[in-house]
Amino acid sequence: MKETINIILAGPRGKMGSEALKLIERTENFQLVGCIDRKHDGKNIKDIDNTSELDAPIYTNSNEAFERLNADVLIELTNPEVGFEHTKQALLNNIRPVVGTSGFSEDQLGELKELSNKQQTGIIIAPNFAIGAVLMMKFSQMAAKYFNNVEIIEKHHDKKLDAPSGTAVKTAQMIKQVRESINQGHPDEKETIEGARGAEFDGFRIHSMRLPGLIAHQEVVFGQSGQTLTIKHDSMDRESFMSGVHFAVEQIIDMDEYVYGLENLME
Amino acid sequence: MKETINIILAGPRGKMGSEALKLIERTENFQLVGCIDRKHDGKNIKDIDNTSELDAPIYTNSNEAFERLNADVLIELTNPEVGFEHTKQALLNNIRPVVGTSGFSEDQLGELKELSNKQQTGIIIAPNFAIGAVLMMKFSQMAAKYFNNVEIIEKHHDKKLDAPSGTAVKTAQMIKQVRESINQGHPDEKETIEGARGAEFDGFRIHSMRLPGLIAHQEVVFGQSGQTLTIKHDSMDRESFMSGVHFAVEQIIDMDEYVYGLENLME
Amino acid sequence: MKETINIILAGPRGKMGSEALKLIERTENFQLVGCIDRKHDGKNIKDIDNTSELDAPIYTNSNEAFERLNADVLIELTNPEVGFEHTKQALLNNIRPVVGTSGFSEDQLGELKELSNKQQTGIIIAPNFAIGAVLMMKFSQMAAKYFNNVEIIEKHHDKKLDAPSGTAVKTAQMIKQVRESINQGHPDEKETIEGARGAEFDGFRIHSMRLPGLIAHQEVVFGQSGQTLTIKHDSMDRESFMSGVHFAVEQIIDMDEYVYGLENLME
Amino acid sequence: MKETINIILAGPRGKMGSEALKLIERTENFQLVGCIDRKHDGKNIKDIDNTSELDAPIYTNSNEAFERLNADVLIELTNPEVGFEHTKQALLNNIRPVVGTSGFSEDQLGELKELSNKQQTGIIIAPNFAIGAVLMMKFSQMAAKYFNNVEIIEKHHDKKLDAPSGTAVKTAQMIKQVRESINQGHPDEKETIEGARGAEFDGFRIHSMRLPGLIAHQEVVFGQSGQTLTIKHDSMDRESFMSGVHFAVEQIIDMDEYVYGLENLME
Repeated sequence: MKETINIILAGPRGKMGSEALKLIERTENFQLVGCIDRKHDGKNIKDIDNTSELDAPIYTNSNEAFERLNADVLIELTNPEVGFEHTKQALLNNIRPVVGTSGFSEDQLGELKELSNKQQTGIIIAPNFAIGAVLMMKFSQMAAKYFNNVEIIEKHHDKKLDAPSGTAVKTAQMIKQVRESINQGHPDEKETIEGARGAEFDGFRIHSMRLPGLIAHQEVVFGQSGQTLTIKHDSMDRESFMSGVHFAVEQIIDMDEYVYGLENLME
Repeated sequence: MKETINIILAGPRGKMGSEALKLIERTENFQLVGCIDRKHDGKNIKDIDNTSELDAPIYTNSNEAFERLNADVLIELTNPEVGFEHTKQALLNNIRPVVGTSGFSEDQLGELKELSNKQQTGIIIAPNFAIGAVLMMKFSQMAAKYFNNVEIIEKHHDKKLDAPSGTAVKTAQMIKQVRESINQGHPDEKETIEGARGAEFDGFRIHSMRLPGLIAHQEVVFGQSGQTLTIKHDSMDRESFMSGVHFAVEQIIDMDEYVYGLENLME
Repeated sequence: MKETINIILAGPRGKMGSEALKLIERTENFQLVGCIDRKHDGKNIKDIDNTSELDAPIYTNSNEAFERLNADVLIELTNPEVGFEHTKQALLNNIRPVVGTSGFSEDQLGELKELSNKQQTGIIIAPNFAIGAVLMMKFSQMAAKYFNNVEIIEKHHDKKLDAPSGTAVKTAQMIKQVRESINQGHPDEKETIEGARGAEFDGFRIHSMRLPGLIAHQEVVFGQSGQTLTIKHDSMDRESFMSGVHFAVEQIIDMDEYVYGLENLME
Repeated sequence: MKETINIILAGPRGKMGSEALKLIERTENFQLVGCIDRKHDGKNIKDIDNTSELDAPIYTNSNEAFERLNADVLIELTNPEVGFEHTKQALLNNIRPVVGTSGFSEDQLGELKELSNKQQTGIIIAPNFAIGAVLMMKFSQMAAKYFNNVEIIEKHHDKKLDAPSGTAVKTAQMIKQVRESINQGHPDEKETIEGARGAEFDGFRIHSMRLPGLIAHQEVVFGQSGQTLTIKHDSMDRESFMSGVHFAVEQIIDMDEYVYGLENLME
């Protein structure tokens, strides 16, 4: 039987936070010992969340939570500002943080790394907890060593403002690190309607589809003579992040180091 | 048992022509009675094509072929210039032409329509003989009545020069005929890398992927709240045109009218 | 400007019903004049649904609703038992029913058809309101005339009990109606692991994938020498039915006939 | 500039062999120094292959070839019987073999490994040279550590006799090595038509589609709550193997060990 992991959750009322509550409730060896919330100090999580049967005190003062509660792990799902303070305090109390934010500065990341080192307390910071997306990026980078030719097509709902998506750009950057840089396509190719060939990134192309009915999808297509290899991720909802949080909590419990990015916990 | 259809083939040595020879040979009720070729006058097809067991005389003078041979159908696969003459002569001899060219002018098409009418002899002119592609376009047009939001992504080998492909543009035009014209995507969407959102056509987008290993593929994706509908055609080789030729020959034998486009033979 | 359509909704608290409330609220020319609900008689919809700003009385006695309210259309989303009564009463009051159930018996359907005829009042009964799914089936049937070879693969979440899905079986039946019946695959093919080739239906195959993360998807793949044609529907949530309800309401308002199946409203 | 690699090709007239000739011709630092062929002893490759401009002697006695020619690498593309002899002789002459056969027995593989070791001469034996297929299998195995739920669908032309394909079974075995063994699907799921859920392998499912127009395709679909990850390989023709041969030749030139499977040359 797996040993119980005692968890403090920061941000229980957010979209990610409420998914995390469900995760903790349904995972046998996960135990919620407390929450950090800027409201509801002194109340119990069962007072504000009637969908679960969890029972744990709420603290608005995070330090108090770290000192009073016997916790192994902090799941930090608030925002970069207060999240940074929570994370530092957790490390100082030898509570391992699992942090879901992409908003820390380079300086802040450096400070957390040093503190983790000094305290000999593991920490994982993951801008993307969707395991499938992380693997898609990892595999794409690996494939780019053997396939010079690649294009990315990402597909999202039509409420999305930016094109290409952040994940597509991140994937493109990871591919660029290992791919022999070439200008793909025929040297004489021409667009009879501007933009047909998509966005150019280091000689390869990224396409952004936006349609109602789509959610969040990406295909990375590699080609060489006679064959194509496609790596595709389809994300349906926020729940997709929870398996990554689960995985990170299970991993960090046995680690003393600083890790940035879920992919670095995966061999 | 189906009645035998006697066929004259114009252009037996071209890429399409040699596929047509195979089609005729393997189709039980198709009978090759002669070929029209600018070379090899007086020879037999078996002298120049050792892959088949066909046996039929070659004529360089097309009129001679039409007059001497007892033919039901002309399969015309040469080029727009001589092809136009062959087609007219065939009609004058009450031989039904099945023509695979997109190169005739509006005037020429008008002349053929009139001649077909006068001779009461059926003719089918088909710029695209790939039945799957024709159906993809037809279904896309039908779906566009019920889905305002659509994007096209076409994928070809990286030897292709033009983007978007001719088929993609044709599909877009057919969609435009029936779709309520709207500007898709979020009004405030922006490209952080130029071209990401593809080519704009009547408010919707077309994307062109070019990679070695691809052949000729197109997806038309329709979206509305909660669902997407995708129509996809994958063409692997020239053989894909032959089922269309087969279909056209079988249809024209019972027709006395002029038909432009294979889709108009399909209900 | 479109004329206002006055609507009675039966079943406002069900899953489909609550989507229908949203549909009515966001559609400019749709006006909710009343609801039929086995509870809450005499209350107003705004008393029980605080997500909308709709304002309409609730009746438990459906006859009373039809007689007192000035309605053009009944949207019937309860269950086959009471739904049948609601539908009959609506016809008797010359209110056009749009019915989303697949549970009526042949006898009941016959009775409704006759009554619609007698009352000269249009009615549409649609077992499937997802326009994309209806088009997928319709296109598949059309394609089957030109492609003898076809396989279906449907993909659903792993909570689904039956394989193949109802939609896959319905699609297969529609294909069977027009396809020349042949046994597909190599005559000597053999399964080295039983079941690999899927379920056999009239000589072609149906495959059922079940995985967490999937929602409701189906691909119909047609093949012939050198090409494939694929028709694919992806359904993400219940909202996907609402465009079909919207479409049916808009159509029925000008019709006096009985129609079974949304596909029969589509040319 | 890359150093020239001198190559002996065994089996130049086979399907793979003739592709290998083209590969050698178009690769700047590859030099054909001789061929091994059971016919045409004493002739030159240019006498029997008029599509290339290669110029190299043909030997029927392989030992003679290895002794007389100054070669770095043997590309062995004949059959398991004579291929085994060629490979042994090459090792004895310190010529590195790149072998494309899956037909050697365990004993033979053991013997070659020992000989490679003794001679300090690298050798690579690859049952599958399609880099994309090898990566698909490798990535599938990696993903199976993080996704318990998986299904495989492989799609081939309808001339194929066995279902599932060899590649699908190999992929399934690699997944099994790392996946926590569970019975997927709902415990109460039932097939209303036998075979719908496909072939069962260690609790997961494999589906085999067979249609004209398909070539050789495989999708491995992983699912977990809210997301799916798909790894897909499409192989269009025999050319797809040549990038793998190219890669293996480039790698083996700097190696002294025995390697089985292309995946073991890829990090």
